[in-house]
Amino acid sequence: MIMPHSPAPFVSFVSSGPGAPDLLTLRAADRLRAAEVVLYDDLSAGPILDLLSPGAQAISVGKRAGRPSARQEEVNRLLVEHARSGARVVRLKSGDAGVFGRLEEEITCLAAHGIGFEIVPGVTAATSATAAAGLPLTRRETARRVQFITGADTRGRLPEDLNLAALADPQAVTVVYMGQRTFPDLAARLIAHGLPPETPALLAHGISTPAQVIMRHSIASLAAHLPQADLSQPGLILYGALAP
Amino acid sequence: MIMPHSPAPFVSFVSSGPGAPDLLTLRAADRLRAAEVVLYDDLSAGPILDLLSPGAQAISVGKRAGRPSARQEEVNRLLVEHARSGARVVRLKSGDAGVFGRLEEEITCLAAHGIGFEIVPGVTAATSATAAAGLPLTRRETARRVQFITGADTRGRLPEDLNLAALADPQAVTVVYMGQRTFPDLAARLIAHGLPPETPALLAHGISTPAQVIMRHSIASLAAHLPQADLSQPGLILYGALAP
Repeated sequence: MIMPHSPAPFVSFVSSGPGAPDLLTLRAADRLRAAEVVLYDDLSAGPILDLLSPGAQAISVGKRAGRPSARQEEVNRLLVEHARSGARVVRLKSGDAGVFGRLEEEITCLAAHGIGFEIVPGVTAATSATAAAGLPLTRRETARRVQFITGADTRGRLPEDLNLAALADPQAVTVVYMGQRTFPDLAARLIAHGLPPETPALLAHGISTPAQVIMRHSIASLAAHLPQADLSQPGLILYGALAP
Repeated sequence: MIMPHSPAPFVSFVSSGPGAPDLLTLRAADRLRAAEVVLYDDLSAGPILDLLSPGAQAISVGKRAGRPSARQEEVNRLLVEHARSGARVVRLKSGDAGVFGRLEEEITCLAAHGIGFEIVPGVTAATSATAAAGLPLTRRETARRVQFITGADTRGRLPEDLNLAALADPQAVTVVYMGQRTFPDLAARLIAHGLPPETPALLAHGISTPAQVIMRHSIASLAAHLPQADLSQPGLILYGALAP
């Protein structure tokens, strides 16, 4: 009797891109087609999961408005368990896996268990949003620095140790991930630090999907708009040197 | 007699990703397969051009060490001329087209000529380099801000109006595109502004290609290394909160 092949435990962290299935990389699509177990966040789900093979097991571990997400420890436990079973495991993460995706917690856990992994990079929301708006993210003369921050700390609040000299710079483009709820507070601090209230801003929802909406604002008008807005959908905020 | 269909002039700006052909997006691969004319930078060439159809015309307009690049006006002229011929035109740009790719100059020109365009976003060098190194680009507790800058202004020098409060922040990850020649100067200014000389740094060449090399340094040791190094290959520099 021949024993079935039992490969070394391994996890592929796969970046889903912003949402449109054709903004997956070829490598990401290959990994998804070959996967036996896929742990995914709801944000990155939808038509991308159509790529999975019929027998693949898809497990949702992500956040959804109004529903608690699986705790990080539970995600880690599932990764280790399925990798040890010898299955081809994909951990699908929305956007680029390395950008505000809590990748560190998961790779630290795998390393502690001696489980190998790879990271398949992808298209992050920032460049997808500007591409959809027909804009470059950087400009040779007027936007030579671009920065990404998260608007929410581990408790969902605006981080306390903001570098306002960096963030209130009108010559940079700033992209705020997960920042809709805290942006009014952030905008007030930016304006107090000297960034003009009329600084251009964009709010993007459903980037690259049929539900895509991109709204042009100033930082002041966006801060005034958000408390009245439906925040059940994740949104990306950009502000700064967005206009030539 | 039926006249051949003459579509409206149109250009697809297509991001090539870091270099590995399977880090193209599915959409980028589709555009390349359908292209009749492709204007490409040498940086983004190589095996990616194997995707082109047999009859497609591939025109190099990029920089290569020791050879002058086509001037921007010449690139603009070629874009307009080929788009007006009715050909399916792809302007291939390395990494993500919107990140330090001089995209603004080309879309401004097309808009002035009434020529439509789309931007296909891609995987930028920053996330490709950290993925290849097995690292996240951001960390929930220690690296909540990431910033991209260019190390070279239009004359190839370190830009004069650097925001050192932003760049000398040990709690950020900073990615320097096109910065190998000017990094010794930048590092001296960062250290003078208070960033510790032992701050971790990475130098990445040939990201995602068979020639990939990623070297670990401190900012001080990288600044000392570069003047002796072969700078004919483009390199990406990362420094800051790279370690947990």
